[in-house]
Amino acid sequence: MAGGEEKKSTAGGGDAKKPNAGGGGAKKPNAGGGAKKPNVSGGGKKKEVKKETGLGLVNRKDENFGEWYSEVVVNAELIEYYDISGCYILRPWTMAIWEEMQKFFDAEIKKMDIQNCYFPLFVSPGVLQKEKDHVEGFAPEVAWVTKSGESELEVPIAIRPTSETVMYPYYSKWIRGHRDLPLKLNQWCNVVRWEFSHPTPFIRSREFLWQEGHTAFATKAEADEEVLDILELYRRIYEEYLAIPVIKGKKSELEKFAGGLYTTSVEAFVPNTGRGIQGATSHCLGQNFAKMFEINFENEKGEKGMAWQNSWAYSTRTIGVMVMVHGDDKGLVLPPKVASVQVIVIPVPYKDADTQGIYDACSATVASLTEAGIRAKADFRDNYSPGWKYSHWELKGVPLRIEIGPKDLANSQVRAVRRDNSAKTDIPRDKLVEQVKEMLDNIQQSLFDAAKQKRDACIQTVKTWDEFVEALSQRKMIFAPWCDEEEVEVDVKARTKGEMGACKSLCSPFDQPELPEGTKCFASGKPAKKWTYWGRSY
Amino acid sequence: MAGGEEKKSTAGGGDAKKPNAGGGGAKKPNAGGGAKKPNVSGGGKKKEVKKETGLGLVNRKDENFGEWYSEVVVNAELIEYYDISGCYILRPWTMAIWEEMQKFFDAEIKKMDIQNCYFPLFVSPGVLQKEKDHVEGFAPEVAWVTKSGESELEVPIAIRPTSETVMYPYYSKWIRGHRDLPLKLNQWCNVVRWEFSHPTPFIRSREFLWQEGHTAFATKAEADEEVLDILELYRRIYEEYLAIPVIKGKKSELEKFAGGLYTTSVEAFVPNTGRGIQGATSHCLGQNFAKMFEINFENEKGEKGMAWQNSWAYSTRTIGVMVMVHGDDKGLVLPPKVASVQVIVIPVPYKDADTQGIYDACSATVASLTEAGIRAKADFRDNYSPGWKYSHWELKGVPLRIEIGPKDLANSQVRAVRRDNSAKTDIPRDKLVEQVKEMLDNIQQSLFDAAKQKRDACIQTVKTWDEFVEALSQRKMIFAPWCDEEEVEVDVKARTKGEMGACKSLCSPFDQPELPEGTKCFASGKPAKKWTYWGRSY
Repeated sequence: MAGGEEKKSTAGGGDAKKPNAGGGGAKKPNAGGGAKKPNVSGGGKKKEVKKETGLGLVNRKDENFGEWYSEVVVNAELIEYYDISGCYILRPWTMAIWEEMQKFFDAEIKKMDIQNCYFPLFVSPGVLQKEKDHVEGFAPEVAWVTKSGESELEVPIAIRPTSETVMYPYYSKWIRGHRDLPLKLNQWCNVVRWEFSHPTPFIRSREFLWQEGHTAFATKAEADEEVLDILELYRRIYEEYLAIPVIKGKKSELEKFAGGLYTTSVEAFVPNTGRGIQGATSHCLGQNFAKMFEINFENEKGEKGMAWQNSWAYSTRTIGVMVMVHGDDKGLVLPPKVASVQVIVIPVPYKDADTQGIYDACSATVASLTEAGIRAKADFRDNYSPGWKYSHWELKGVPLRIEIGPKDLANSQVRAVRRDNSAKTDIPRDKLVEQVKEMLDNIQQSLFDAAKQKRDACIQTVKTWDEFVEALSQRKMIFAPWCDEEEVEVDVKARTKGEMGACKSLCSPFDQPELPEGTKCFASGKPAKKWTYWGRSY
Repeated sequence: MAGGEEKKSTAGGGDAKKPNAGGGGAKKPNAGGGAKKPNVSGGGKKKEVKKETGLGLVNRKDENFGEWYSEVVVNAELIEYYDISGCYILRPWTMAIWEEMQKFFDAEIKKMDIQNCYFPLFVSPGVLQKEKDHVEGFAPEVAWVTKSGESELEVPIAIRPTSETVMYPYYSKWIRGHRDLPLKLNQWCNVVRWEFSHPTPFIRSREFLWQEGHTAFATKAEADEEVLDILELYRRIYEEYLAIPVIKGKKSELEKFAGGLYTTSVEAFVPNTGRGIQGATSHCLGQNFAKMFEINFENEKGEKGMAWQNSWAYSTRTIGVMVMVHGDDKGLVLPPKVASVQVIVIPVPYKDADTQGIYDACSATVASLTEAGIRAKADFRDNYSPGWKYSHWELKGVPLRIEIGPKDLANSQVRAVRRDNSAKTDIPRDKLVEQVKEMLDNIQQSLFDAAKQKRDACIQTVKTWDEFVEALSQRKMIFAPWCDEEEVEVDVKARTKGEMGACKSLCSPFDQPELPEGTKCFASGKPAKKWTYWGRSY
């Protein structure tokens, strides 16, 4: 299943270059160095930049986005580049975000009676090739195991790019009667797609982590309903956890999942590059796979039926979208709901001040916040200045910083500084928990609002081809009336092909504005059938 | 790292045959059929057996253990055989057990400040071959990717059999000074070991799930301490969660982890086969890998130091040991702490009885138990008799069954039946939660006690070679004074080689009985240095 990872896109788009390339060896280039020794990145060539921000980034988000992105993911210690191209090390700072999302999603699907399972990593070639459209979509990027130790395998074995063909032979075996339905399974696993175009950390990698749900129902109505229930969970991951606005909609025939009936998705947008990005997908497979894999059942009346199936996935791509949308020139910006450290407490001792008192106040602050369920930590390291620590935790994106110095101690207060807008607030110690909670909620909401405002400012409604071309050149997310014909989309892609990659349909939103009688398709001039988003994409 | 999966053993031991082999295709053999339609297994040849137990197993644990094991894991819906030999599908009933253990272990290591991460599945050959002893231990079973799509890769890429060589080049990069230590990472992932000998579900499979922890310290003392802290968590998984007694000890030089300094393990025993089984391992790698991968740091005095490293793992093998130790002729027996359904509630409506009242009482029972944090479920299916349901949930190993019939309804009570010893108790409705909790605790303890009693009865202390040979022929776990010389163990293996596999040392327990001056080694006659367990093993 396609999950967040779009297979058909020709657009590289990432521009992501490997900063400390080479990696892997025993060399010791100036990399992150644990959580304790971030560096000035890329070699620290620009001294003035270094001075300005302490641990600052060499690259600017608005100036050279691709380099900025690579720098942020490495310096914030989300990612380490690996010595096999397209593979990345997910560091603890990443995994903590992944686990927060996983906790939410796993609990939600369990409420829906979806059960976790684990199917093998390997697929035999015969099974992989069973669904023709499906295998065509994935075949070019399948990795093959042909040897073990020194021996050639009798038959090469594929590594799963997705698990439809791994699982469905067993669905056929397990489903016999209507009482065996629905069958609703999910697995958390790694998948491999050996792509050759522009690997980018999180966004396009040869191995990635995801969940893939695979369900089978007796009726199309049940399958249709679940597709949307899952899509709503994906919306919540993006909007409520990652603070990223997404559009729920349906993919075009050209862009739907290989072998499926229809694909729904949540679509995000990266204003800096003017590219759409498929956030996660929930597919109705219809009965296509059921037919190929003979997933049949006897219904209540003793008649033969064929199962209706869905598959759906989101991946570590989510984290890349988060970096792209919220990050700034100081580094990462983490929404509080996914931050493993929501509040970093930093002692600011002055000469002759009551250092022990300040340290104790920091410890007490962390203790109060932790007890209230807030993920807080103090940075007591004595080999870094408070200023260095500010920059360090800003680079890592911690939502709220609390500083405690002599004046704060004297006034029984702490100083809180927001990562997103640098706003400073003095909080009386006796209102600590209450106000910090409120601030974290505010940050979460502000991040979403700001991202939505930026995204909305990029949406341009067009009615004609000329307007469309103009908007595309301005890197807009284009909203246009469309005839919904496959050959027209093929034509749009052909006519917009260029260095930046072709433009394609992103989705037709479920939330459709009025389409007055007689409205014409922006591309073909034929009668329009629906409003659809278009753009270049990841 | 070796984890629970022992690499060097020549003993197949599993005897596990594939019951419904062939699998994978579109055929529909008589397999499990979702959670709803267990079958009589293997073709139901022995009709008298079928009659006796309803859904009974064809094979008996004491008569043909290997077949019994294969039958239980399939019929209890833990495993489905897969069309690639040595790979197995882990069904929801398995994953729920895995997740319970994971929840415990993950929380415990987080308390120890160990952080989760995710390193790639793939290893480049140069790195894999860096530690000579290590690669020799793993090379024969490494799976190699040589192709993607239709293209040959320039260099073949290995799939991780364990991640020492994947991770340590980056440890070298991240660790520069003493402040970067300790570095403590863990990952939950799949690994692949393409073994050709006797695959057995859970126990020896080509792909399995595990956690692997990799830590680096400034001093040996810290590393030594962590080795034992982790080993204690493994003991708790076995003894407190899986109700399986284990022995904590140190492996011999011959049996230690390839490339490490010393290996500690928890060792379990399967009385039915008379085989030991390595439950999980916690290795001190010493500075061997640090030397190869140049993991150096500057200490507080500005001197160069080399890191001390540990690695440790437990895998899905744990679940196989649980099946082997607790299962019986009715099927699986689950310890309450890992059972996803701890209590199954079954309505027993009679003709003319108050069926609705019974159903309501069942629902109320589930609600009360669930509210109290007990994992309870009712089986309201109307196409199966109560008797069939009893057998079904016994086969699946649910620790406690609650039956509610007309008499129970009239008396405001429920009938509780224990899976482990079939004991029946009437519980007044107003004492439901309290008594069920107590019964579950009792079951957990009884399972452990019974397993320990059986295991202990298999331990035989010997002092001479003749006694040793005799005990081995009786499939004992042998406890003997040993000179601790490598060539003597090589010799013991050679002298005991046979159809059943050679005998080897299992571990030297930390808990050593007195060893009187002048005690001789059972095998060499040289002065004994320690007491050591010996046996055939998985």
